[in-house]
Amino acid sequence: MALLIGVPAEAIAGERRLSVVPDVVKKYLGLGAKVMIQTGAGVSAHLRDDMFAEVQFASSGVELCAAADAVLCVQPPSAELIAAMKPGAVLLGMLQPWSSAERVQQLMEKQISSFALELLPRISRSQSMDALSSQGAVAGYECALIAADHSPKFFPMLTYAAGTIRPAKVLVIGAGVAGLQAIATARRIGAMVEAYDVRPETREQIESLGAKFVDTGVSAAGTGGYARELTDEEKAKQAERLAKAVAQCDALITTAAIPGKKAPRIITADMVARMKPGAVVVDMAADSGGNVEGTIAGEKTWVNDVLLIGPTNIASRMPVHASEMYAKNLFNFISPFIKDGELVLDWEDEVVAGCCLTHAGELRHAGVKQVLGL
Amino acid sequence: MALLIGVPAEAIAGERRLSVVPDVVKKYLGLGAKVMIQTGAGVSAHLRDDMFAEVQFASSGVELCAAADAVLCVQPPSAELIAAMKPGAVLLGMLQPWSSAERVQQLMEKQISSFALELLPRISRSQSMDALSSQGAVAGYECALIAADHSPKFFPMLTYAAGTIRPAKVLVIGAGVAGLQAIATARRIGAMVEAYDVRPETREQIESLGAKFVDTGVSAAGTGGYARELTDEEKAKQAERLAKAVAQCDALITTAAIPGKKAPRIITADMVARMKPGAVVVDMAADSGGNVEGTIAGEKTWVNDVLLIGPTNIASRMPVHASEMYAKNLFNFISPFIKDGELVLDWEDEVVAGCCLTHAGELRHAGVKQVLGL
Repeated sequence: MALLIGVPAEAIAGERRLSVVPDVVKKYLGLGAKVMIQTGAGVSAHLRDDMFAEVQFASSGVELCAAADAVLCVQPPSAELIAAMKPGAVLLGMLQPWSSAERVQQLMEKQISSFALELLPRISRSQSMDALSSQGAVAGYECALIAADHSPKFFPMLTYAAGTIRPAKVLVIGAGVAGLQAIATARRIGAMVEAYDVRPETREQIESLGAKFVDTGVSAAGTGGYARELTDEEKAKQAERLAKAVAQCDALITTAAIPGKKAPRIITADMVARMKPGAVVVDMAADSGGNVEGTIAGEKTWVNDVLLIGPTNIASRMPVHASEMYAKNLFNFISPFIKDGELVLDWEDEVVAGCCLTHAGELRHAGVKQVLGL
Repeated sequence: MALLIGVPAEAIAGERRLSVVPDVVKKYLGLGAKVMIQTGAGVSAHLRDDMFAEVQFASSGVELCAAADAVLCVQPPSAELIAAMKPGAVLLGMLQPWSSAERVQQLMEKQISSFALELLPRISRSQSMDALSSQGAVAGYECALIAADHSPKFFPMLTYAAGTIRPAKVLVIGAGVAGLQAIATARRIGAMVEAYDVRPETREQIESLGAKFVDTGVSAAGTGGYARELTDEEKAKQAERLAKAVAQCDALITTAAIPGKKAPRIITADMVARMKPGAVVVDMAADSGGNVEGTIAGEKTWVNDVLLIGPTNIASRMPVHASEMYAKNLFNFISPFIKDGELVLDWEDEVVAGCCLTHAGELRHAGVKQVLGL
């Protein structure tokens, strides 16, 4: 019997992505697997059922999960779907491993081999499977567009018959994948960009994108490559320099999210109060508590004359390409273990072992175990 | 007595621009004029009252209009405000001269010297006063951002660890100031851009921005830089060639508005039906009837799997810079005639005469006279 890969519709409201796209389905079929998709699952990613060739369709997620040997998802499936899965089946996706002890418990009880891409060991070989990065790139791009679209000013310099408009100043905080993409996008649109990250080694990357590194004069670089704890005096100095950059910018984009943890509060209400009239703040970490005091997830809030935007599930705003990238990440993770239509996972593999959340009735990930207290 | 320039708050819902900005007010003061602003008039353009130095404030528009020798506005003032104006006073702004016979009648009866910037003769000297152009540039930029923000795809090419995303295809129709700015912006963000205009002389401008000209083999070059109306046969030929480009694009931006006329219907429902799933249409002419069949002014509409967006009062989405540009346009129009704090209009001046809507109880503009039947 060939491996049956099941793709249920995403159930969470506002989730527009899908865990496969037609080109990736073809690749699974090429490896001898079969693919079953829930009818209409791709609609919100602009993927009609008739775009998927040679797949089976299931009319419900329960029917699909009951049949599939491996279930691919974007966000975690509902308890109902997990309950319908076959014991020993594989579940692969962004399972938000830290967010629900009940779900992890259910996965153990059902003997599901579950793999959470958030747990991916960040080694060179795993880059092509890194969904946090691919979706972060989408989110960074989107946040720059959201900032430009809501700004009452032009981002680019503009010379017109009656004068010249100076380019807007954009400040990006956090120079991970999302932050770098936000920098690149704001630069492309034409803004002057400054960026800050606590890791001084990001300076070169920031500068290579044509942005200016905000030098707070404080380095957390310690011995042996580890960050050291800052003194209170240093912290105050850092905050003061940052507040100055915040006060001067026309748009602020914060991208300091840490998977599984509450986002660090970097921008205080006092810093927001000192911003220019008409300034725009896009808080990419709104979903996980916010980098900016006052942002509300899913809302736009005026604080004095500053607009705070707290977009949620940002990658889902661009579902066609976000799905394409995500589907490839999943394929790159699982395809090395599909041979002649059979899935044989290599438990010695660093990536397989590192991503494994539950297997054979056990919670396998030490970090998650500790956080959930299971 | 020094000339008193009055700036009422804009009354129309959603209008966020103002007809002056602090720097321009300083220039008026430098010419010996006085300036009176309605309290809070600049709020939606992020201009607080305290940013305006050495001006008087009026608590109501009626009070202000009753005192002012010259009233500056973005959109036409209400009948109540016109009624409050002094006989012989000057009114300058985007007066929408073709839209209301009642308003023109009232301006005549009140003996207002009214100047509508939409009537500006398009000569080299008047470019710095051209509000249609400056606001069109804002609108074109905004439309490209709206398209990018609503597209389910990346505009730029993106290379990531698991592959490469190809750039989106954007089609811009109409290569006036707005269209060219939309092209430039979509290109900046990273899209592949094609553009079309009925005036073949726009080809060079389009190509100079790095976009490809869609050649339909139909020319509609008209007088004064505006397009002439096409014959039915020409329209059919144009439509056929265009439909092909429309079917291939990921985002379509239409910018074919003709001041004072209903916008030409360029994109039919049939052309929309042939667009790609997830394609986005931004119809800049939605306010004046729409270039695209099915767009509704002020709304987002899904037609099959295509999103039609009909933004209204687009320049007002970017009120800081739109106001700055507009305020300079007005200043460049009127300042040559302010000497030692007095306004002495030169009726021999081509620009003054050309822009004049009403004066001394008469409707002065032949074109408007004809359209309104007055």
